Amino acid sequence: MLKEAIFHSPKSNYAYAYNEKTLHIRLRTKKQDVASVDLIHGDPYKWDGGSWNYETKPMKKIASTELFDYWFTSLEPDFRRLRYGFHLTGDETIVYTEKGFYPEIITHDTADYFCFPYLNSEDVFAPPAWVRDTVWYQIFPERFANGNKANDPEGALPWGSAEPTPTNFFGGDFEGVIEHIDHLVELGITGIYFTPIFKATTNHKYDTIDYMEIDPQFGDKETFKRLVQVCHENGIKVMLDAVFNHSGFYFPQFQDVLEKGEQSKYKDWFYIWDYPVQTEPMPNYDTFAFTHMMPKLNTAHPAVREYLLEVGRYWIREFDIDGWRLDVANEVGHDFWREFRKEVKAIKPDVYILGEIWHQSMAWLQGDQFDAVMNYPYSHAAIQYFAKEEISTRDFMYKTAEALMMYPENATEVAFNLLGSHDTPRILTVCKDNKEKLKQLFTFLLSSPGTPCIYYGDEIGMNGEQDPGCRKCMEWDTTKQDRELFDFIATLIRLRKEIPAFGNHGTFQFISDENDKHVMYTKTFENETLLFAFNNSAEVVTVPIPFDLKGRKVTHLLTGDEFAYEAEKVEVTLPAHGYVALKL
Amino acid sequence: MLKEAIFHSPKSNYAYAYNEKTLHIRLRTKKQDVASVDLIHGDPYKWDGGSWNYETKPMKKIASTELFDYWFTSLEPDFRRLRYGFHLTGDETIVYTEKGFYPEIITHDTADYFCFPYLNSEDVFAPPAWVRDTVWYQIFPERFANGNKANDPEGALPWGSAEPTPTNFFGGDFEGVIEHIDHLVELGITGIYFTPIFKATTNHKYDTIDYMEIDPQFGDKETFKRLVQVCHENGIKVMLDAVFNHSGFYFPQFQDVLEKGEQSKYKDWFYIWDYPVQTEPMPNYDTFAFTHMMPKLNTAHPAVREYLLEVGRYWIREFDIDGWRLDVANEVGHDFWREFRKEVKAIKPDVYILGEIWHQSMAWLQGDQFDAVMNYPYSHAAIQYFAKEEISTRDFMYKTAEALMMYPENATEVAFNLLGSHDTPRILTVCKDNKEKLKQLFTFLLSSPGTPCIYYGDEIGMNGEQDPGCRKCMEWDTTKQDRELFDFIATLIRLRKEIPAFGNHGTFQFISDENDKHVMYTKTFENETLLFAFNNSAEVVTVPIPFDLKGRKVTHLLTGDEFAYEAEKVEVTLPAHGYVALKL
Repeated sequence: MLKEAIFHSPKSNYAYAYNEKTLHIRLRTKKQDVASVDLIHGDPYKWDGGSWNYETKPMKKIASTELFDYWFTSLEPDFRRLRYGFHLTGDETIVYTEKGFYPEIITHDTADYFCFPYLNSEDVFAPPAWVRDTVWYQIFPERFANGNKANDPEGALPWGSAEPTPTNFFGGDFEGVIEHIDHLVELGITGIYFTPIFKATTNHKYDTIDYMEIDPQFGDKETFKRLVQVCHENGIKVMLDAVFNHSGFYFPQFQDVLEKGEQSKYKDWFYIWDYPVQTEPMPNYDTFAFTHMMPKLNTAHPAVREYLLEVGRYWIREFDIDGWRLDVANEVGHDFWREFRKEVKAIKPDVYILGEIWHQSMAWLQGDQFDAVMNYPYSHAAIQYFAKEEISTRDFMYKTAEALMMYPENATEVAFNLLGSHDTPRILTVCKDNKEKLKQLFTFLLSSPGTPCIYYGDEIGMNGEQDPGCRKCMEWDTTKQDRELFDFIATLIRLRKEIPAFGNHGTFQFISDENDKHVMYTKTFENETLLFAFNNSAEVVTVPIPFDLKGRKVTHLLTGDEFAYEAEKVEVTLPAHGYVALKL
Repeated sequence: MLKEAIFHSPKSNYAYAYNEKTLHIRLRTKKQDVASVDLIHGDPYKWDGGSWNYETKPMKKIASTELFDYWFTSLEPDFRRLRYGFHLTGDETIVYTEKGFYPEIITHDTADYFCFPYLNSEDVFAPPAWVRDTVWYQIFPERFANGNKANDPEGALPWGSAEPTPTNFFGGDFEGVIEHIDHLVELGITGIYFTPIFKATTNHKYDTIDYMEIDPQFGDKETFKRLVQVCHENGIKVMLDAVFNHSGFYFPQFQDVLEKGEQSKYKDWFYIWDYPVQTEPMPNYDTFAFTHMMPKLNTAHPAVREYLLEVGRYWIREFDIDGWRLDVANEVGHDFWREFRKEVKAIKPDVYILGEIWHQSMAWLQGDQFDAVMNYPYSHAAIQYFAKEEISTRDFMYKTAEALMMYPENATEVAFNLLGSHDTPRILTVCKDNKEKLKQLFTFLLSSPGTPCIYYGDEIGMNGEQDPGCRKCMEWDTTKQDRELFDFIATLIRLRKEIPAFGNHGTFQFISDENDKHVMYTKTFENETLLFAFNNSAEVVTVPIPFDLKGRKVTHLLTGDEFAYEAEKVEVTLPAHGYVALKL
């Protein structure tokens, strides 16, 4: 057995409280090196004579990557405390503890075992319950719909009359969203993520001038209040974008520093290296990247904290928003985010806090900071596989498994899964306009653990290259919309809502072979099993279904057709980039 | 190269801010599998044409355990941001990133590299500066000295007139400590850790009745204030013991619940399962272990929090204490400790927070909770090796290295290292009264990274079995004290203070061979090198010194003797369980 590969760590994605009663325990071993694992577990204080009163519980292999197998079990400790280790069987039998390996189970002492000291309910990672069943829709407000021409910025172009550029405007606004709420309801989405809406100069509004004011081109506060109400009346949550890492260049506090230098009372709001402050050839203050237009905010400074915390509270308190998406979240201090969480949850306990982090994010997902992160690693593998065909079925399965093992299950359930955004080429363009591939991706996304997000317009077949191409005006002429695609995605969303196994309540498990040109996985919930199969080639493939379906009724979920299979061995034929979702 | 053994994780003991400018990076590889490692690093936003502007820096192998080698480097990123990976050379050359392995350095994209997003100063793990140079002394107040007979508890026995039992009293008090402050000054210690002093019924006072009152047998608040003043005047810090996981049975709030049941306004101060509350045969409320006398406090309850936080603040604010040692710290919620830290540091920014945790404690050492934990794994290996001779030199080196790699260096520097306490047999007894072994252990402890603690009486050769034997009255008859041992330990403390390399400022490195019957390590600081050698056998051993000392002056630190070695190969002869500390 390869001891060097065996890994576990308490209070991490390997051992965590799933809820107030349940602990999840995972173990990593070398791939195909271990035949079975039993969890050795017990209360640390429960003894029988001089011997520890432990029990064992078999663990299940739930995922494999290129190098490793992952084992899992869950349990409810009687007294909310756990001392535990692992009994591994392969070419030898060993016991793995925090202090190393033993040939057999130790019962005279529990000091060397792993320890989950106490399941304190206030420490449980507990995202808002509603998020788990939410399907998000991302709106870039300048380009979704122009409902009120009176508030158009100067020089705004007629809707859709030109290609988007980094600097042009088309007048999208809140009235436009309200007018088109039926489109969103028909699609079935239940949450909107708005990119920034606060006062700023650019069309993307990431250069905040005033975090307490709405940019006039989108409407006023009354209109925004009405927008939130309309969303809520239609079962749609509202999430705003908080750019707290840096302000815009024209943020008055920064302008004051530029003007008054060391005399400015705002000088400690930023990280100024020396005076006079300069912007060229290189800013002498901390910035986002090296952009002098984005001065980094000092979120350790009490006045900055109070200002930004009030921003966080204000839009919840006064407008009843449901979530904050935090831009460049990992460059802001943990200490600030801890206070931010306390403050916003005190006003609305079920507000959702979503951090933009592209890397491994366990440090932010301990229950004290974010509810979720934008789950790039997960969708990245799917895009590489389905859209670009640049990785094999094997690598897709491994990368997806890695992403699923990266976080606790309760974090994965609310991770924000996206195929594209205002910062990437549109997914249809990435698919080289192949709509079958697009449908594969949406089928995968909507049947995945996590909360999916659809970028405005992707549902009607809009395309576009990297920014600014991906920020085209939404197409409202239904004759130019791909309504068949719209219906397809609406069906996926409906299935996700109606069938627990389809979405976030189902357990995901790959069942295809590494060498296949297709990929298959099951989603299971209680007695229900769904099977998904995708052809990753331009050839027709015939996929054997590894279940005995004889005499059972099978529903093709995407078409609604029902079949009763007579043969013992069932096969499904998939056309080029075809896909099927079966309810067995 | 064994990829399964290679491990790194950002924001952990493998990658952390050492101070406001410096990042420490560690990497784990299979033992003796990798010849060299270079850190690939750069600012994530620094590009040259289409290519990432990275640099490389060689890493140093700093420790080895049974299975692994550990590599290290430190660096100061220009812009407080770091994207990085590892370039490993062995039987092949590979690049290790967050997303897996590559055959060569990727420069067209940095997304796959590890990320330390920003070195925000407020997140740096920053224990009080004074702790690093502190030598602690643990006092069990009932047994240190009786300075005031007037406050003796009823039935107190004459000092030292009987063996300690779980229930007898000898009248130790604060006046006794004040009277004997010269003993502590002469020994050279600079901090006292007092086990509980608050109102309680037992002689150990872990069964708190009132956290805001001093137990009358120790004196009153005026006396305690004077004790702290006397300590401070003598350069000695004062740390108290906070038992916040559970109260004592006679805590009035718990008595109220016992009496009034569900009608008690304190019912949510504890975790009561059902009513009426029962203590026998098994308590129907959460307890420490299964002890009905120790009801677990609900530290998620606002009133309990405020009560305990005020305790934390009160003794600092009113009595100027310097530290809190937190009993059973890992069974209390993280959320409470985060607030506790904020509250006590707001009153005294350099107060020391020490958690009692016996297991791996990274979850509490992220900068938001504790400054240190009681470092049992470190001293446990030393006791197994020096005192009990139950592990080999090889295993001692591995276990010590594991303990040193378990935490960030700034956490290890202030870890609380102890050879014994009121809860263990006295270390001389563990050594089977062999004082040479005892001296080996103290030499190791005082020359180790971390802050050492001496249990009262160990310095004068007191012995005693497991509690209550280890809680004997301090011996104040100097003719019965081992003054030679006292002088020896006082010398170690003095050397630790005078020679930076000796104590916490020196870098620790084993240099002995796995198969030796002795162990050797160096401590280095700037140009200074100290060498420590210990004979782990009852035979005389001759230890070759692997340094060219010809013509150099060498000081035997423990005797003060100076030698000029003429031979090219120098050997040191160590008697049974002998030891030597050389300044080269």
